[in-house]
Amino acid sequence: MSSPPRHRLRRIKKLGSYDRALAYQILDDGLLAHVAFADGKQPFVIPMAYVRDADSLLLHGAVASRLQRALGSGVEACVCVTLLDGLVLARSVFNHSMNYRSVVAFGSAESVHGAAAKRAALERFTEKMLPGRWQDARQPSPKELGATSVVRLPMTDVTAKVRTGPPDDAVPDLELPVWAGELPMRLTMQAPVPDAGTQTGLPDYLARFVSERDD
Amino acid sequence: MSSPPRHRLRRIKKLGSYDRALAYQILDDGLLAHVAFADGKQPFVIPMAYVRDADSLLLHGAVASRLQRALGSGVEACVCVTLLDGLVLARSVFNHSMNYRSVVAFGSAESVHGAAAKRAALERFTEKMLPGRWQDARQPSPKELGATSVVRLPMTDVTAKVRTGPPDDAVPDLELPVWAGELPMRLTMQAPVPDAGTQTGLPDYLARFVSERDD
Repeated sequence: MSSPPRHRLRRIKKLGSYDRALAYQILDDGLLAHVAFADGKQPFVIPMAYVRDADSLLLHGAVASRLQRALGSGVEACVCVTLLDGLVLARSVFNHSMNYRSVVAFGSAESVHGAAAKRAALERFTEKMLPGRWQDARQPSPKELGATSVVRLPMTDVTAKVRTGPPDDAVPDLELPVWAGELPMRLTMQAPVPDAGTQTGLPDYLARFVSERDD
Repeated sequence: MSSPPRHRLRRIKKLGSYDRALAYQILDDGLLAHVAFADGKQPFVIPMAYVRDADSLLLHGAVASRLQRALGSGVEACVCVTLLDGLVLARSVFNHSMNYRSVVAFGSAESVHGAAAKRAALERFTEKMLPGRWQDARQPSPKELGATSVVRLPMTDVTAKVRTGPPDDAVPDLELPVWAGELPMRLTMQAPVPDAGTQTGLPDYLARFVSERDD
């Protein structure tokens, strides 16, 4: 038997899952990852754009950033993506909680080299942000690809944690005259704001994207 | 002159700020923090509820969690709070970005001991989640306070980073027939979902909270 994964869930096992399909769905739904690495005893955590590519995460940033350099050198990394789905209001203060979906992934990152691989990564980032955008926007030049740093993080361990549903009040509290329930939250799109000088109308893929995500 | 803070911004200085007032505003607007610490070379990052208390962050979780134990033992920690404000669609793929507000804070955490201090922390957590809730919900019992773990992280270094506004296309791209602009995003409240068995109507503080945050 192999050794247990280092992120083995120590608590609230009912919420955790090693199911990669669930973790990957959460990763595909998110836009921002929080990426941690350590320099000696000092941990760092920073928000980054990411996209999943099979069993890896691609992380994107400016070439010169310390994080990109550290990640590209193969340091151990931990990536967390959290989607906040709502507040959970129990009758007791103690049982207040949040509904969320989160993934924690571990791995050792490596720099992505070569114009073709970087171009493919940028296409993934762009299409994740807004499907249809890659074909419409001006695609990257060789110089821009040279200035682009992409890191690939093969996910060796992945854990998903999900909390959904109503509060878990204990029996005596259920009689209390306190409103209890869920306050669902969603990251929603607002109306697009055209840049000054934009002569072009809203493209169909963008209008569709917004209408699918607004309320 | 004191030594430079360890999180000194290496890049995109225009976006960074050491202004604590700005950082504190962002912290007060957020609900979830990503907290990192290192165990040897292995970094960990995990989502946690938090609330700011003057120059400290209070972090809240289950007593038995590894993170709470590690944090309470005074390990160096790094906390990041990121609020995603929108997608930035440039005419060039290369200049696509996101609008966001983020804070990275460093410090060494300590456990909060004693029922009174834990109770005060829980009041802060509850009132941050939903102002008015503390007085309405059933307040914690001594046993519940005993099962509550709160960690205080005095923020020794704090950095805020903010990106706002339209894309930064270079001059030749400005003529391209590509829609460019911002897609603002917001974490919005949906209609409250009462728990089964809730007899009580929606309290005023809750209705007000939702109407201020929905669209």
